[in-house]
Amino acid sequence: MERVVVALGGNALLRRGADDTFEEMYAAARGAAERIADIAALGYEVVITHGNGPQVGRILLQQEAASGVVHPMPLDVCGALSQGQIGYLLQVTIGDVFFERGMERPVATVLTLTRVRPDDPAFQRPTKFIGPFYQEAEAQGLAVARGWTVKPDPHGGWRRVVPSPAPYSIVETPIIARLVADDVIVIASGGGGVPVVEDGPRLVGREGVVDKDLAGAILAHEVGATSFLILTDVAKVQRGFGTLMTEDIDRMTVDEARTFLKAGEFGEGSMGPKVRAAVEFVSRGGNRAVIADLAQATEALAGEAGTVIVSGDG
Amino acid sequence: MERVVVALGGNALLRRGADDTFEEMYAAARGAAERIADIAALGYEVVITHGNGPQVGRILLQQEAASGVVHPMPLDVCGALSQGQIGYLLQVTIGDVFFERGMERPVATVLTLTRVRPDDPAFQRPTKFIGPFYQEAEAQGLAVARGWTVKPDPHGGWRRVVPSPAPYSIVETPIIARLVADDVIVIASGGGGVPVVEDGPRLVGREGVVDKDLAGAILAHEVGATSFLILTDVAKVQRGFGTLMTEDIDRMTVDEARTFLKAGEFGEGSMGPKVRAAVEFVSRGGNRAVIADLAQATEALAGEAGTVIVSGDG
Repeated sequence: MERVVVALGGNALLRRGADDTFEEMYAAARGAAERIADIAALGYEVVITHGNGPQVGRILLQQEAASGVVHPMPLDVCGALSQGQIGYLLQVTIGDVFFERGMERPVATVLTLTRVRPDDPAFQRPTKFIGPFYQEAEAQGLAVARGWTVKPDPHGGWRRVVPSPAPYSIVETPIIARLVADDVIVIASGGGGVPVVEDGPRLVGREGVVDKDLAGAILAHEVGATSFLILTDVAKVQRGFGTLMTEDIDRMTVDEARTFLKAGEFGEGSMGPKVRAAVEFVSRGGNRAVIADLAQATEALAGEAGTVIVSGDG
Repeated sequence: MERVVVALGGNALLRRGADDTFEEMYAAARGAAERIADIAALGYEVVITHGNGPQVGRILLQQEAASGVVHPMPLDVCGALSQGQIGYLLQVTIGDVFFERGMERPVATVLTLTRVRPDDPAFQRPTKFIGPFYQEAEAQGLAVARGWTVKPDPHGGWRRVVPSPAPYSIVETPIIARLVADDVIVIASGGGGVPVVEDGPRLVGREGVVDKDLAGAILAHEVGATSFLILTDVAKVQRGFGTLMTEDIDRMTVDEARTFLKAGEFGEGSMGPKVRAAVEFVSRGGNRAVIADLAQATEALAGEAGTVIVSGDG
């Protein structure tokens, strides 16, 4: 049976512009669940990974608001909290859709840790903005009190920045692989997984954010997926991001993708990381990666929508 | 290989009187992890369940503090959040201890849903106090605004009360059973699991708190455990709770335990629910349940500490 890892973007869990109520999140998860069931109905074994940016942002706001009475947890714990929250919504809605379609399959959320290197240069150069916006003086005060790095956010105000280290292996791969081989729909590596470093015999959580598509690529490789499907809310990758001459890409080789990446053809805050994750998967031997709109998930897997990235060897 | 379900009390994750910092929680989890490794070293397959009261209490405080800017999530989502948080701490520390002892075993946290009946009388009679303390007027206002039931707490002030429905099955048992049979240390059913009811083909989360020991008993039965070990911070169950004539119990049959429960010999807020969970497990065919101090986990399994509950048939 073919195996696919599906990476759901943040919009699959909280639609742009939607209110952040439970009902909105549930409705969004339900919509994603329908597409997951469509994919499974094609005969795929499925592992799902997902972003957690909006959810962790809200958890950080809540922690700060209550910091006078409850000690805020470090960012690694916040990531684990969000895996529980989002996994729950996806697990329930996916289970429901399968049951309603008479194709009942077990669904499991596996809390996931992602190994990163302690000497990853990202730790010296935090770049990822997270959490509440502050006035400069308040931000500088928190930087001293909490040991944070803070910077002016391009959107205005000051925020905390954290490292985004590169993932190199997923701690729970053996567990995820045996469940998916057993026909379980597995939800894993949420938010890129909690970043951990090996410190002698110990795994130690680090405050940082692992790119969820890059972690998904590593996971897809490790569980032996043939396809890696990155779902977002645009139909295709485009060249010429930020120019007037954008051009849809139907298919590109890893070499072409690397050339385009180097030339800055994709937005760094948007499609660039997804293309990089696609390249990571295919260059490690994956059959193909596809970047597509969530609404066109099955068409994308059939090669009729989205942007396909292949090795170009054959 | 013998299989045991170990229920960790709240004190295993946040010691009484300890500050609620990450460091304190990590240290407590590390201590519990040492005992789990001791148990596994005796040759047991191990499933771990745990309470989440202090953690969910803090999540609720954080949600309320930020309710002007972030919509609070319902209690079922808060339970899922706490499963991620606590699962992470246990998973990392257990993995570390095993690795340090050269007995590496995979560890997995499985997000768990627990089936309860929609017509459980508990839904008409909420009894479980949760979340922040309020003045009466504020509590009554929240009751109207959020649809809560609020009551005066015996400790002073007003609080929200939620139902504590009886669990009858664990949704993820098939997944947990196959992992534990494969020698994985499984963390599951945290906080009793998220209570869900069957509504046609759907599983719908309910705002309530399932007793974690009772859910653990159902889980222990369903995964075919021979022993159910309830770890807390007292050495033995005592008769005559609240009187001057307390008496340690080394061993009791299910019938004796039921008689003592009916006579109110155990505190309802403390040992009563644990004894009831032990009875539930043994009366469903479990070999034995043991209630003991976390520090004496292995002695308790060897029958040399704690209070053993057996069927009394043989």
